[in-house]
Amino acid sequence: MEHRKVLLTEDEMPRQWYNILADIAMNPPLGPDGNPVTPDKLAPVFPMNLIEQEVSSQRWIDIPEEVLGVLKIWRPSPLVRALNLEKALGTPARIYFKNESLSPPGSHKPNTAVPQAYYNKVFGIKRMTTETGAGQWGSALAFSCAQFGIECKVFMVRISFDQKPYRKSMMATWGANCVPSPSLETNAGRDALEKNPDTPGSLGIAISEAIEAAVTDTSGQTRYSLGSVLNHVLLHQTIIGLEAKKQMAKINEYPDVIIGCAGGGSNFAGLAFPFVYDKIHGKQIEIYPVEPAGCPTLTKAPFVYDHGDTSKYTPLLPMHSLGHAFVPAPFHAGGLRYHGMAPTVSQLVDEGLLTPKAVKQKEVFEAGVLLARTEGIIPAPETNHALATVIEEAKKAKEEGKEKVILFNWSGHGLLDLTAYESYFAGKIQDVEMTQAEITKAAQVFANHPRPQSLKSKR
Amino acid sequence: MEHRKVLLTEDEMPRQWYNILADIAMNPPLGPDGNPVTPDKLAPVFPMNLIEQEVSSQRWIDIPEEVLGVLKIWRPSPLVRALNLEKALGTPARIYFKNESLSPPGSHKPNTAVPQAYYNKVFGIKRMTTETGAGQWGSALAFSCAQFGIECKVFMVRISFDQKPYRKSMMATWGANCVPSPSLETNAGRDALEKNPDTPGSLGIAISEAIEAAVTDTSGQTRYSLGSVLNHVLLHQTIIGLEAKKQMAKINEYPDVIIGCAGGGSNFAGLAFPFVYDKIHGKQIEIYPVEPAGCPTLTKAPFVYDHGDTSKYTPLLPMHSLGHAFVPAPFHAGGLRYHGMAPTVSQLVDEGLLTPKAVKQKEVFEAGVLLARTEGIIPAPETNHALATVIEEAKKAKEEGKEKVILFNWSGHGLLDLTAYESYFAGKIQDVEMTQAEITKAAQVFANHPRPQSLKSKR
Repeated sequence: MEHRKVLLTEDEMPRQWYNILADIAMNPPLGPDGNPVTPDKLAPVFPMNLIEQEVSSQRWIDIPEEVLGVLKIWRPSPLVRALNLEKALGTPARIYFKNESLSPPGSHKPNTAVPQAYYNKVFGIKRMTTETGAGQWGSALAFSCAQFGIECKVFMVRISFDQKPYRKSMMATWGANCVPSPSLETNAGRDALEKNPDTPGSLGIAISEAIEAAVTDTSGQTRYSLGSVLNHVLLHQTIIGLEAKKQMAKINEYPDVIIGCAGGGSNFAGLAFPFVYDKIHGKQIEIYPVEPAGCPTLTKAPFVYDHGDTSKYTPLLPMHSLGHAFVPAPFHAGGLRYHGMAPTVSQLVDEGLLTPKAVKQKEVFEAGVLLARTEGIIPAPETNHALATVIEEAKKAKEEGKEKVILFNWSGHGLLDLTAYESYFAGKIQDVEMTQAEITKAAQVFANHPRPQSLKSKR
Repeated sequence: MEHRKVLLTEDEMPRQWYNILADIAMNPPLGPDGNPVTPDKLAPVFPMNLIEQEVSSQRWIDIPEEVLGVLKIWRPSPLVRALNLEKALGTPARIYFKNESLSPPGSHKPNTAVPQAYYNKVFGIKRMTTETGAGQWGSALAFSCAQFGIECKVFMVRISFDQKPYRKSMMATWGANCVPSPSLETNAGRDALEKNPDTPGSLGIAISEAIEAAVTDTSGQTRYSLGSVLNHVLLHQTIIGLEAKKQMAKINEYPDVIIGCAGGGSNFAGLAFPFVYDKIHGKQIEIYPVEPAGCPTLTKAPFVYDHGDTSKYTPLLPMHSLGHAFVPAPFHAGGLRYHGMAPTVSQLVDEGLLTPKAVKQKEVFEAGVLLARTEGIIPAPETNHALATVIEEAKKAKEEGKEKVILFNWSGHGLLDLTAYESYFAGKIQDVEMTQAEITKAAQVFANHPRPQSLKSKR
């Protein structure tokens, strides 16, 4: 009988993360003075050991034993052959996915939340703050802080806080304190409430609150944590792709196409970067980050210098951006509603090493339902974006009669997002697409920013 | 570094289920005439291939390849060493659990839903009906029917239907039709609504509706399905214990104590029965089914002949029962709110081979929160009953300074039960305990039923 899963033992887990900064050319982040940001400027926000990782260009970075010990709660994650999907589509393509939905919080997010909590602990930090939109990231950090005995404070965008009470309860079960943002606990929150007492909140405000809560703690024992975009976050996620490589080698396969959904970029990069290394060194391989047509950062927005947050607390980052003031339309994949994109992913797109795709919401949920009924797992709305593209590729392989090997990242399950499926079945999911006029308007906020140089990585 | 998990490959999966009917003495189910029920009487309700399994006394029954093919979506399930819990308790006990929360619906339930859907399919059945209380079983059958292209209809107790909309959406995503019970679709439902238009519904009514919907389909292509209690259901669940045995053997361990929560008995029996075989044949081993003090079937109710449902549609089954008319207090573990118990589990308790335990709700949630913060997975409220007893045993081992080996079944995750945790944190969870007077009163309904004989299994 055909095998569904390729497993690794705990002994076969990767012992090092892959750092793509060793292999690509990057524009530096810029401070308010227009000069590259130095590590010490970030010290009030992140612990120095993580800042060192953020700026490191060492290709392989050891994974601490204590981190591996916690990752083993659910890792290595299985590589799964999507046999039922192949059958349903009648495609000659062989389709594989990494099942990242098996972690206790239900997504790939703890792959970085665990090491972040660990490095904070080692640095003597007692309390971590963060923001969360849809709730996946806040849950992952809550879970990880419980493992290392660190206090965890989560500012959750108010509209999500009200609409998704399960996420808040999940964080409470792991001992974290989750409050709706804007809150009365920070200046940023009070300002926002003063301007609009009925505001639904935004990721921008929540980030400001979380950063403020960290840097204003006079004990010096609190730091802020981010769940995507930054180099060290994507670094930690490469364990996905490194495992996948080992697993594919075990069955003598190698992907022709790699697909992952992309919001801030961490789930996509986690699978793709170890294969990007191969592509830089000559391998023929197509790599698709997939985003919603309603927030088309990579497919339609320019490569610019922009802030990572609405309140401009962060340095200027070289990235594809729709503008730091842009508020994406409310669609059901909170994890992909981000105006910017990881600088590393942006650079690779700029160089033509990645081929971004944008998909619409109805197609996205249609794909999710097909996968739930064939492969069994109900996918997170974010994952559904990757799935729509997988299906398109598999159909193309059928038309061309090609035995293509497709590998994608099943970033999470949708068990706490079932209201989105309910909306889909009720015919309430709308296709959302940004017009060029909207994109031009949103771009005004970075019109006067410096421009990143066009760089070319060594190949 | 210490390993957390003991894995099996797909090739190492058990190829046969263990049928405990080969090894224990049983009183037969009785029909309305007081005589043992013959298989043909059950034919309108279940397909004949499952009825044959229900009455078989063959010790080993082959698992069809098609069933294994679907079980491989998440099986074999890991055997996990609860290292963090051991550390938190400072116990010399070594604690292991089977992680059954990794199935797409999130519990052990699909272990039997998959073969049930398969056997119905093979028998030419196009549509299956069932009831669900908390929603775990209905979800599992919905998932399984999607795998075999069978229509699925679920009658969900109205109060759960209203309080847990996510479960309904989950079933819809897998293509099942879930309606609140009582419904207007059956006589049983219409009767119930006529008597009380505002009824919250009950499992008893929902069972009646599901059975009626199956037997009244004149096409003959619909059958009913039950998620626990019956022999064939428990048979299918033994894959859990059979895997666990292989996994423990790999690390040269054997349990001193086995623990599982018990509602209808399927999750408990799935882990325990393969070890009960050893106990019958001389092994020294303690085996604890754990139930809520608010529904103390095994610990306080007598071993009698009683109906499996409130409407007396089922035969008289030899079991520990609180009375078929008993409605357990509303506590947060819907899967354990059942008046009866699997006849096989009941027989083993009657013979003294199992030692049932009852636990109270606050202790139960305290245990769940400790496990979430140590082992990471948020447990289902049902699982928490087992956990409370695991903690008690581990503490006893500490007091006695004994290196005891404890094995328990992590029956499911609590991601769709987070409101229960919310209630716990809000101090709204009450300890519920049945008084002797209440038990005596509930027992009146079976006062005139025949009594099962006191039998002794071969040892």
